[in-house]
Amino acid sequence: MTADMMSLNTDALNMDPLNSSRFDRGWQKLREVDGNAGERVIESLADIAPDFATYLIENFGDIYSRTQLDVKSREIGVVAALTALGNATPQLQVHIHAALNVGWTQAEIIEIIMQMAIYAGFPAALNGLFAAKAVFAELAA
Amino acid sequence: MTADMMSLNTDALNMDPLNSSRFDRGWQKLREVDGNAGERVIESLADIAPDFATYLIENFGDIYSRTQLDVKSREIGVVAALTALGNATPQLQVHIHAALNVGWTQAEIIEIIMQMAIYAGFPAALNGLFAAKAVFAELAA
Amino acid sequence: MTADMMSLNTDALNMDPLNSSRFDRGWQKLREVDGNAGERVIESLADIAPDFATYLIENFGDIYSRTQLDVKSREIGVVAALTALGNATPQLQVHIHAALNVGWTQAEIIEIIMQMAIYAGFPAALNGLFAAKAVFAELAA
Amino acid sequence: MTADMMSLNTDALNMDPLNSSRFDRGWQKLREVDGNAGERVIESLADIAPDFATYLIENFGDIYSRTQLDVKSREIGVVAALTALGNATPQLQVHIHAALNVGWTQAEIIEIIMQMAIYAGFPAALNGLFAAKAVFAELAA
Amino acid sequence: MTADMMSLNTDALNMDPLNSSRFDRGWQKLREVDGNAGERVIESLADIAPDFATYLIENFGDIYSRTQLDVKSREIGVVAALTALGNATPQLQVHIHAALNVGWTQAEIIEIIMQMAIYAGFPAALNGLFAAKAVFAELAA
Amino acid sequence: MTADMMSLNTDALNMDPLNSSRFDRGWQKLREVDGNAGERVIESLADIAPDFATYLIENFGDIYSRTQLDVKSREIGVVAALTALGNATPQLQVHIHAALNVGWTQAEIIEIIMQMAIYAGFPAALNGLFAAKAVFAELAA
Repeated sequence: MTADMMSLNTDALNMDPLNSSRFDRGWQKLREVDGNAGERVIESLADIAPDFATYLIENFGDIYSRTQLDVKSREIGVVAALTALGNATPQLQVHIHAALNVGWTQAEIIEIIMQMAIYAGFPAALNGLFAAKAVFAELAA
Repeated sequence: MTADMMSLNTDALNMDPLNSSRFDRGWQKLREVDGNAGERVIESLADIAPDFATYLIENFGDIYSRTQLDVKSREIGVVAALTALGNATPQLQVHIHAALNVGWTQAEIIEIIMQMAIYAGFPAALNGLFAAKAVFAELAA
Repeated sequence: MTADMMSLNTDALNMDPLNSSRFDRGWQKLREVDGNAGERVIESLADIAPDFATYLIENFGDIYSRTQLDVKSREIGVVAALTALGNATPQLQVHIHAALNVGWTQAEIIEIIMQMAIYAGFPAALNGLFAAKAVFAELAA
Repeated sequence: MTADMMSLNTDALNMDPLNSSRFDRGWQKLREVDGNAGERVIESLADIAPDFATYLIENFGDIYSRTQLDVKSREIGVVAALTALGNATPQLQVHIHAALNVGWTQAEIIEIIMQMAIYAGFPAALNGLFAAKAVFAELAA
Repeated sequence: MTADMMSLNTDALNMDPLNSSRFDRGWQKLREVDGNAGERVIESLADIAPDFATYLIENFGDIYSRTQLDVKSREIGVVAALTALGNATPQLQVHIHAALNVGWTQAEIIEIIMQMAIYAGFPAALNGLFAAKAVFAELAA
Repeated sequence: MTADMMSLNTDALNMDPLNSSRFDRGWQKLREVDGNAGERVIESLADIAPDFATYLIENFGDIYSRTQLDVKSREIGVVAALTALGNATPQLQVHIHAALNVGWTQAEIIEIIMQMAIYAGFPAALNGLFAAKAVFAELAA
């Protein structure tokens, strides 16, 4: 991400100045965990729902900065949950990026997605694996 | 579980003798991970679908004996996924027991369920928390 | 069902006289397929949403009187679908009754529910089996 | 829509002459509420399931001509529900068109979709917002 | 609600003092919209996840205090969405209370739930109607 | 499928030699029921999760070789269930192929998908019909 893009994002968002520390914490956490994939989500909201981008960032920070559970454990849970739900492929792909960012290997991510066949059926697991295949191919390119 | 109950279970199930090692591996894994809560599920199937109990046990062993991901990480994923799905409360409760069995604390389990508010909404998280509350109360009694 | 209950039902419903043949076709089809279980659903709507009871009956007749697919095949599909959805236990139980009414055996119903483990996960199949267990126990009593 | 297309649609559908008034009411209501977006759905069914087009139109009329709730309130409910379900993007887009047709502003539609983050999670709300973004872009073009 | 109960709730919650105005806004909004039903949810969290109660209250305030959409329109959307999801009955009941609080009639609530048969199927609508029946009966008692 | 493709598939998969008969039974059953569409799923897993391909094939054989329910009845159930779930379009298309392979006509498949409007709503049925339209067009080409 270029410096321009960053300033664009934080300028475009309709922030409550009283809550700027909450926003800043969330934005830092989102970039740390979701990386470029998270930033692209925020950018894609700029012209349709900038307030929602702010709201998402603040909430992400609220939850991910809590110390009751480490971020790595949080992310394996998110990959599992979004695979099982089966109706949020773009978000699953963001969190496959995130899972790699926080230290999971490709093999471990494949494994938790496979396991979801038990809990949500083979179609959910298959579609999760194809989502991972696309992410891994993008990273390899 | 008494010795009687164990022999009852393994006698009642319609096992394929050629696959007995697969069944044994699954049964051992299920007892290790899900504990009494898993055994009660198997017993409750005895008079309606004993073949399904066998099938479930074999599949549980197939997945949980794979070494690509440790069992502790698997269980935080299952608690997350079943909370998000929101339509499998009895199974979520079995896996809250399982998560405790493999080393998660009550506070960590609460935390991953809370986090699902982000990914599946507050109703899913609330119902997950109430499921955990019932399990913890049962264990405290 | 007594004659009184039948007249109560058809009197209580807010029927469009111009559509009475459509209503009659649906009511006959519903009683034929779903039997007492279907009638109990209609009765339970009488004091909260009688128009919805009419609407349901008419729609049931519209679909189930079509000859492009026999009713027996329709019902195995409904049991499969409601098991997979996993959030409609009362309606799954009505259609387990219906599946028996149109000629499926208890063993065949168990089998299609078991199969849903492949397509919607073990929790959905387990909860479907427990729904069937309750229906079969009620019928045996 | 040209006159040709309209006559094609009503000719191609397998109408029950006894119910033609019900069909006509539904077709008028569907064009009034869903507009071109609704007509395109009906056309796309012509070669695969014309009976289903008729059935859909009749049902739409049955519900939307009821006076117990105004159409504007009905449509904010539909946009909320389809956003929350998260697996019906084409239909959500039809109803974003419909919501505009019956008097909601773009800002109000964005707002109800955002709100679904609370009830169905951020992924459902995000995917709803992207669906709205596509509809608004199409209308602006 | 007695003064005791209110002080208990606000004392028990793990509030960030820097955000107390956000919490206060949410708590006021939740009591205004959800009434006693909302308060009972908060109380039920006190001994299992007090932080989640705070988090829920703050988020409720964030969204419901936005002026882009009136609260009455928000609530018909929530009743529609929770009916369609079909796996959040306790929360649907809270929002049936809320819909009444903000000015919808029982007949209008019944109507939006009925309409969900079109978008999420008859089982979802039926279970929504039974949820409403229980709420209306409780209020009448 | 050419002989090359077959040997490629069976070589690429990470089979447990002790379970080769189970794998062989599943592979034969999958080709018989799902045909080319099933083989393409297996191939697409080869470079991302070959173990999952094996696991899927073995499970398919476990269930579909059971004689408690004929394969034709199983497939109408799968088409119904995947239509109702609404988040597994690629798998629904595989099973529309399968339903044709085991003896259902196009008209019967359309009919069971239409019927799902009652149980899972019109959007689920519409998306199922469009999935069928694509499969039938591919077969006609």
